[in-house]
Amino acid sequence: MSSAVHSTKEYLEKNDMDIRSLSSSHRHPQDAPYVHKVGLPPKQNLFKEFKETVKETFFADDPLRSFKDQPRSKMFVLGLQAIFPIFEWGRSYNFAKFRGDLIAGLTIASLCIPQDIGYAKLANLDPQYGLYSSFVPPLIYAFMGSSRDIAIGPVAVVSLLLGTLLQNEIGDPVGNAAEYRRLAFTATFFAGITQVTLGVFRLGFLIDFLSHAAIVGFMGGAAITIALQQLKGFLGIKKFTKNTDIISVMHSVFAAAHHGWNWQTIAIGVSFLSFLLFAKYIGKKNKKLFWVPAIGPLISVILSTFFVYITRADKDGVQIVKHIDKGINPSSVNQIYFSGDYLLKGVRIGIVAGMIALTEAVAIGRTFASMKDYQLDGNKEMVALGAMNVVGSMTSCYVATGSFSRSAVNYMAGCQTAVSNIVMSIVVFLTLQFITPLFKYTPNAILAAIIISAVIGLIDFDAAYLIFKIDKFDFIACMGAFFGVVFASVEIGLLIAVSISFAKILLQVTRPRTAILGNLPRTTVYRNILQYPEATKVPGVLIVRVDSAIYFSNSNYVKERILRWLIDEEEIVNESGKPKIQFLIVEMSPVTDIDTSGIHAMEELYRSLQKREIQLILANPGTVVIDKLHASDFAQLIGEDKIFLTVANAVAACSPKLVEEA
Amino acid sequence: MSSAVHSTKEYLEKNDMDIRSLSSSHRHPQDAPYVHKVGLPPKQNLFKEFKETVKETFFADDPLRSFKDQPRSKMFVLGLQAIFPIFEWGRSYNFAKFRGDLIAGLTIASLCIPQDIGYAKLANLDPQYGLYSSFVPPLIYAFMGSSRDIAIGPVAVVSLLLGTLLQNEIGDPVGNAAEYRRLAFTATFFAGITQVTLGVFRLGFLIDFLSHAAIVGFMGGAAITIALQQLKGFLGIKKFTKNTDIISVMHSVFAAAHHGWNWQTIAIGVSFLSFLLFAKYIGKKNKKLFWVPAIGPLISVILSTFFVYITRADKDGVQIVKHIDKGINPSSVNQIYFSGDYLLKGVRIGIVAGMIALTEAVAIGRTFASMKDYQLDGNKEMVALGAMNVVGSMTSCYVATGSFSRSAVNYMAGCQTAVSNIVMSIVVFLTLQFITPLFKYTPNAILAAIIISAVIGLIDFDAAYLIFKIDKFDFIACMGAFFGVVFASVEIGLLIAVSISFAKILLQVTRPRTAILGNLPRTTVYRNILQYPEATKVPGVLIVRVDSAIYFSNSNYVKERILRWLIDEEEIVNESGKPKIQFLIVEMSPVTDIDTSGIHAMEELYRSLQKREIQLILANPGTVVIDKLHASDFAQLIGEDKIFLTVANAVAACSPKLVEEA
Repeated sequence: MSSAVHSTKEYLEKNDMDIRSLSSSHRHPQDAPYVHKVGLPPKQNLFKEFKETVKETFFADDPLRSFKDQPRSKMFVLGLQAIFPIFEWGRSYNFAKFRGDLIAGLTIASLCIPQDIGYAKLANLDPQYGLYSSFVPPLIYAFMGSSRDIAIGPVAVVSLLLGTLLQNEIGDPVGNAAEYRRLAFTATFFAGITQVTLGVFRLGFLIDFLSHAAIVGFMGGAAITIALQQLKGFLGIKKFTKNTDIISVMHSVFAAAHHGWNWQTIAIGVSFLSFLLFAKYIGKKNKKLFWVPAIGPLISVILSTFFVYITRADKDGVQIVKHIDKGINPSSVNQIYFSGDYLLKGVRIGIVAGMIALTEAVAIGRTFASMKDYQLDGNKEMVALGAMNVVGSMTSCYVATGSFSRSAVNYMAGCQTAVSNIVMSIVVFLTLQFITPLFKYTPNAILAAIIISAVIGLIDFDAAYLIFKIDKFDFIACMGAFFGVVFASVEIGLLIAVSISFAKILLQVTRPRTAILGNLPRTTVYRNILQYPEATKVPGVLIVRVDSAIYFSNSNYVKERILRWLIDEEEIVNESGKPKIQFLIVEMSPVTDIDTSGIHAMEELYRSLQKREIQLILANPGTVVIDKLHASDFAQLIGEDKIFLTVANAVAACSPKLVEEA
Repeated sequence: MSSAVHSTKEYLEKNDMDIRSLSSSHRHPQDAPYVHKVGLPPKQNLFKEFKETVKETFFADDPLRSFKDQPRSKMFVLGLQAIFPIFEWGRSYNFAKFRGDLIAGLTIASLCIPQDIGYAKLANLDPQYGLYSSFVPPLIYAFMGSSRDIAIGPVAVVSLLLGTLLQNEIGDPVGNAAEYRRLAFTATFFAGITQVTLGVFRLGFLIDFLSHAAIVGFMGGAAITIALQQLKGFLGIKKFTKNTDIISVMHSVFAAAHHGWNWQTIAIGVSFLSFLLFAKYIGKKNKKLFWVPAIGPLISVILSTFFVYITRADKDGVQIVKHIDKGINPSSVNQIYFSGDYLLKGVRIGIVAGMIALTEAVAIGRTFASMKDYQLDGNKEMVALGAMNVVGSMTSCYVATGSFSRSAVNYMAGCQTAVSNIVMSIVVFLTLQFITPLFKYTPNAILAAIIISAVIGLIDFDAAYLIFKIDKFDFIACMGAFFGVVFASVEIGLLIAVSISFAKILLQVTRPRTAILGNLPRTTVYRNILQYPEATKVPGVLIVRVDSAIYFSNSNYVKERILRWLIDEEEIVNESGKPKIQFLIVEMSPVTDIDTSGIHAMEELYRSLQKREIQLILANPGTVVIDKLHASDFAQLIGEDKIFLTVANAVAACSPKLVEEA
């Protein structure tokens, strides 16, 4: 230890700055214990203060940083690059990068084609709409998006959510297929608009209000619900419930048991599901074999289609895809409802689906950006995702977003830029143009098996266990969302997730923690006596720390809690015959802000203490707080000499007075 | 100063506890600078943790404290006293107290009778319903309430709110008088139920979500709206708008100008309003003459009624009260809607009106309790207020609560207990039984004048100015509520007030403050360099303080903000040629909690820093945080030796390493 101090001194001699205090401060505390007064920051004018708040709220990432002090022509280029990042990274694009992107693009294409067909079914749409959504949106994203690893297209959870919400409005998606489809495009359009709006108005932080825990629960629940839905195709059941809750589904399944299950279907389903899960297992064991689970689905489709075609198993009741429209996306501009009853419904569904899609895409984007250590502008990303959905809604696509499973494969296959999305898009285009008729004999059971093996990855036991270990309240949110989705519906689950997330925030601001501080032996440090049992209380002085900004939502609680600490302490003191409490020190370090209600509560506290002949002392109020204590004249009320830089200073100032009266 | 230390030492010698550290710590920092490790509190089991949270949330005031360790018979008595505090304070009631209560009761009775008649009109009800509401509810409250100073009865703002909400549902309150009245009783019933429920389930803190600032704005706006409504009676206008916004009202007033104003009415109104305002002024100037404004209204009523009776001014178009039913409250049990369409509407209106009534009553109760320094149990108070409204709804009363103006008069007239409410109630009873017919000739203009002079007190310029000085955001909430009420309606104003209050909470948790810390010369204290310009940064080390719990709602922001601080700092360092940043110390003192999203964000921060070859160091994580850092293995990830008790310790530990690499 002494060598450390020694080298510190050497260091000090090399530097002009006086950091001698680092390890040798309070050397002469007797001489000057109160050198530093609590700092009062210079007054800011209203406009500047307001500007700073707005900047920190909406432009926390300082997006215009690079525009500063640039000539106009340069600013135009920068602006173009800001909207279309492809012009930025495209300039340094080279063949080495393209090789990575090509392999990754082909891999995710082979994964996405069978998934798309299955996911379209989840959204109650014909299979080609899934493929459409993997053609146009990835192209748009490649030009506008800034994530290098995300794979764009339809995803399971959003498909299910959209399917459920649309079905609630339209009823039978087969009987009213045209209306259903039109409402789907309308919802997609407004999902895109929602996303663009959030991005442009820099309200991206709104999606942060869905907590990680709630998302884990929601995703797990959605995965189970989706898997349960696949029992229809997997078991070859014809009459199946329209509800998604586990009880209705199980009821359907067992009601169909004695005449509705088709053993040929089950045989195909089980064998290919086993194959897919085994492929997944291999990919997990050996990261280099990531391509095994990635091409597994396509192989399954090819093999099973061929098998059914040869055996004509469809005549034995094995349900098949039957028909996929050939050709690329037709226009759907005229199909979007811009008036009438369905407009409002479309807007409502669009907002919900758009937000959930955003949550997923932004989470993926952030994860991979942090793994490769590049910056991602969440708001810009939302504009890109929104634009791609707006264009998508006009070209017969439904809501597309970033897919967890395909993005992971993309990353592992060595993608370098969003060009892998372009490659995938081209493959999907070729598929739509030339080979969709080949899917005619693809058994539905295979699609079910592919979806089941895909969504199983969304059930994240480890994350749930970690949440349980870290934060019990988070775990309740997680389970609430999970059971809400499984036993009720995706909407209910989502509602529960959001409500619990909000309840947590409100609880945090309503019931902040408070702690009694004690002195750590042989230091000037004061800490929570529950955390540091060796810390000792100072006789005659009660030191309370308030662990939150004091706002209207908690000001009364804080006041009453402090008084209750005082009453408790006085009881102890009376029983043990120790000196009476004469000083109450409120450690304000964690009190980052105080509002008018908070000032009122402090005034009431001060008056209550006066009646008990106890002095109120404040320690270390921060910038904003000290400013407001002065603005409200509260500092003058209690006396400016009652406000100290540290608890230690405050205690030192109390002690002599304690002695005088002892 | 040295004498202070000297006497501290004397003090220490008298006490067995070692607080030598108070003024002489760090005496030998070279020998043992890191004595104290960050405390890890003992593990609590899940149930205990959950119990503590529930207790702190719902039973923060420890209401069962006095029940502990009591025999059963004693507990019964205590329970009875808890529900009916009159059995507690009643036992020490004496004649001296009664004298105070009698005078206060008579004073508030003289004030409430004319007010009640006017307020009933605000609620679009016949005048006697105002009087009814000043008879039954105060009696119930006297038995169950624990405030000694509150004066119970109808109040202006709740009457206006109820009138507006009911009119929105029913339409014309005169044409559908019976239905209107029934819905009023239904709303009152559910207002009471809401209040009781909030109290019983200890959800009283919910009303704290309406911030002080929003209430100031809302009350001010409501006062102006109410005053504007009185222009009808004051100017003797017959055709008057049903809307309450200033534009509709002004339109009505000026449209009626050339044929609808009645000069006799105006003459009576203006002269008595002048008298009332002058009486108010006298009462304000000399606190001993508080009774002058208190009896002013009654005198005005008597004089003006007599005057109209003599001159028969009603034949010249001076509108008069005409008729008040004689006799006390009839039963209204059968009139409450317990089924049908109106049930739901009644519930909705009841919840809103009940919450607002609660807000007002609790604010009054708290104010006077803190002035006389007695404890008020907010939840118990809600049960009392709710019970009184439930009973009220069955006895032809509408929503009653605590009145600001009458409670102040009650307090100044020397009330001692809730007996003053009983006295008032008896006077109202006698009035109903014997003298209501005398009000026949009372001109409406007088009632309007009385209401205007009463509500003017609700416009609190000083409070608004103080809010402006202390907190600009609060001021926006205040003005939003004010203009919402004045230019739209009470509902809109209320909605704005609540929304802005919530927005503030959300903003607080989404965008917490962060600060760069520097060392205060000649101390081991590290403070915000913006607040303490003399604080100096430590070369090679960046110290960031995060001023909030790190939750899902802000975890991404916190991570990115810290990284931005780092980038900014590195730019400065590069330009000035100072040593490179090698350590990032995060001061965690104000971080009172962290959830799973927060841990994730910290992990991402750690990884980003690793890529930049910067070490992450934590200073002073609190009880909950250190617990979670360990539970999530994050402490092991960064290394337990990277977590320090104080920033000073952390800096001291960095310094030698800095030198080695320098």
